[in-house]
Amino acid sequence: MKRNVIVGQSGGPTAAINSSLAGIYVAAKERGAAKVYGMIHGVQGLLEETYVDLSAHLKNDLDIEILKRTPSAFLGSCRFKLPEVHKDKELYDKLFAILEKLDIEAFFYIGGNDSMDTIKKLADYALVIGSDIKFVGCPKTVDNDLAVTDHTPGYGSAAKYIGTSVKEAIRDASSIELKKGQVTVIEIMGRNAGWLTGAAALAGTEEAEGPDLIYLPEVAFDLEAFKKKVGALLKEKYSVVVCVSEGIHTADGTYVCELGASTDYVDAFGHKQLSGTASYLASYCAGEFDCKARSIELSTLQRAGAHLQSEVDILESFQVGGAAVKAADEGDSGKMAVYVRVSNDPYQFATAVHDVHKIANEEKVVPREWINGDGDYVKQEFIDYVTPLIQGEVEPIFVNGIPRHLPKPFTTAKTV
Amino acid sequence: MKRNVIVGQSGGPTAAINSSLAGIYVAAKERGAAKVYGMIHGVQGLLEETYVDLSAHLKNDLDIEILKRTPSAFLGSCRFKLPEVHKDKELYDKLFAILEKLDIEAFFYIGGNDSMDTIKKLADYALVIGSDIKFVGCPKTVDNDLAVTDHTPGYGSAAKYIGTSVKEAIRDASSIELKKGQVTVIEIMGRNAGWLTGAAALAGTEEAEGPDLIYLPEVAFDLEAFKKKVGALLKEKYSVVVCVSEGIHTADGTYVCELGASTDYVDAFGHKQLSGTASYLASYCAGEFDCKARSIELSTLQRAGAHLQSEVDILESFQVGGAAVKAADEGDSGKMAVYVRVSNDPYQFATAVHDVHKIANEEKVVPREWINGDGDYVKQEFIDYVTPLIQGEVEPIFVNGIPRHLPKPFTTAKTV
Repeated sequence: MKRNVIVGQSGGPTAAINSSLAGIYVAAKERGAAKVYGMIHGVQGLLEETYVDLSAHLKNDLDIEILKRTPSAFLGSCRFKLPEVHKDKELYDKLFAILEKLDIEAFFYIGGNDSMDTIKKLADYALVIGSDIKFVGCPKTVDNDLAVTDHTPGYGSAAKYIGTSVKEAIRDASSIELKKGQVTVIEIMGRNAGWLTGAAALAGTEEAEGPDLIYLPEVAFDLEAFKKKVGALLKEKYSVVVCVSEGIHTADGTYVCELGASTDYVDAFGHKQLSGTASYLASYCAGEFDCKARSIELSTLQRAGAHLQSEVDILESFQVGGAAVKAADEGDSGKMAVYVRVSNDPYQFATAVHDVHKIANEEKVVPREWINGDGDYVKQEFIDYVTPLIQGEVEPIFVNGIPRHLPKPFTTAKTV
Repeated sequence: MKRNVIVGQSGGPTAAINSSLAGIYVAAKERGAAKVYGMIHGVQGLLEETYVDLSAHLKNDLDIEILKRTPSAFLGSCRFKLPEVHKDKELYDKLFAILEKLDIEAFFYIGGNDSMDTIKKLADYALVIGSDIKFVGCPKTVDNDLAVTDHTPGYGSAAKYIGTSVKEAIRDASSIELKKGQVTVIEIMGRNAGWLTGAAALAGTEEAEGPDLIYLPEVAFDLEAFKKKVGALLKEKYSVVVCVSEGIHTADGTYVCELGASTDYVDAFGHKQLSGTASYLASYCAGEFDCKARSIELSTLQRAGAHLQSEVDILESFQVGGAAVKAADEGDSGKMAVYVRVSNDPYQFATAVHDVHKIANEEKVVPREWINGDGDYVKQEFIDYVTPLIQGEVEPIFVNGIPRHLPKPFTTAKTV
């Protein structure tokens, strides 16, 4: 590389998205890029010309290591879908003018489906106007729902967090023997894809039992079948643990979290107060079985839990960042770097690049044949798929008892 | 020691309660105890003569290390308050007969207020009937609300988990800039004492901002004042993070989580569905400020998060178990081992024993002078108190990517 490059982050953050940023930075520098700019809050920020020179924030190798261990989007993120060119050509021209001004040779975007849509549109527009700027995407999504790539950066760390936390919660729930039993419902992220929720099965190890039931959004949820299963389990054991995706829904498409609001409860401010999926199901069990019930939501902690990163995930995320840079440097544009699983046991992986036109806006869900017949647990195929991705640990750098992160290059102060 | 000892665990579990169990086991063996029995599910289980010989489960030093890293009560726990002697003398005689049969020399109980009440009653009864069995308590409570002891085993690890998780959640919440702002309300355990919630302040470090507001149950919660503060913050910054104890309540004693149920919403099963404190306040903010709002409950994960133990906590918990054994071996009964803070900087601690009659059923709350005037943040005194307790880490023993725990010596199968 001879000129400058720019990188941005987009969409919901993960515990590994900054490792890809580190990979892009290191590879671009290594390949001779003069400056590596970082867009603050993605394309949205770039349009307002808010960016930083990453060298000012990554002053040495320790900074790189801390960056890898920093959760959330270091550069800030955005949810901004580029309009179609014919609807707002001016916006494209403005963006390209900014890029030209910064003497940009390659533009990298770390993100999920929407971000790959951005790469696609910008690469296409570059062709139209004859710009030689390369546009390459780097995958990211905790949900693991991107097409083509074997898995996504960030998924492995979230899966490790989920397996570990669910294991601890199961143990906690078993400590006290209640005559009428107790149901614990754990809610895990995933609107349409059950990859994260399936990882709860990792809590089952040779010395400890896993969850009793796991419900993914890939299979229609049947409240009556659920009731039968939990009822039968409560006759056998005093602590029943159920893991559910936030997005599970009945056959007619109604989200389970909406079932609880059937009486149209509206709070004092006119807001329909939706209880969560787990909260509704826990409440349902308490009512049906007259037992103690508790709901646990892993919430944003599951994607921000950088203190429990998977070494495989962090390493791969770093490498895929480097692969994106290599691709751009070799002349690719309109591509996304992807993961290829070379073999499962021993686990081996490689990176590749793929035409982004075939990726954007496609959602990968858990194959039905990886879920059991009743639709209430994942099968061994799923475990075999996810297990290599949670291997190894990245030790947090603790300062005064708390993990150190790299200071944000932006503030949350409102820009008036 | 010449004969056998027995140990039980009681009340809500923590991430350190098994380190105290390890301390008791190791010290009792070291001091010559023939057998160390473990009551399954505390006194409740002992009354049904369910106990184990701990040597069968702790076969080597590795088992001891894994036990220290195992969350929840290894022996199972119970919530069982001994009746007054005059109300059920038979129960006492039954318990003592079992202890005599097992040739018990000393009885240890790891737990909180209720457990110390058990120690007190049994020690008193031993005096009445002329039994020479020693009864000594070992403190435990994630809530840190035990009197006399400087702090409690389990608190430091929970505080470390809370400080770390809140730091990660704050970073996550700051990634996307929303024009109307976003309020994140994080709910932390503590019905009457704010020790755990105050630990959220640890998320504020030299490189990262902490929560914006912290509300403890020690100060009456004023919804109007809360609204003013959050409103003012939303004018300054786009991400506002508030930490609250589950037990915050208004001046008239109404729990904040009850405010949301004012319209008496009852679900299909006749259950009044209470939203949590954080969920209510997030909903309130969304309504008042027309902004995005999210609630996060740290739930049981904060007390079961053994993958993020504080080294100081685990070491002290182990030592206080040993101190309990030493006390019994030296003839003490009706005592509890406690922590004494010798100095703050450098932090030094010692163990001591204290008359359990002066401990039982007393609750220690955060001193008002450690909370700011407005009652919405902890002061430096609080930070200085908690900081030494979260120092150092205990590396989990990962097997196949997931922390290893010691297998439970009991099952959750229902005993018919």
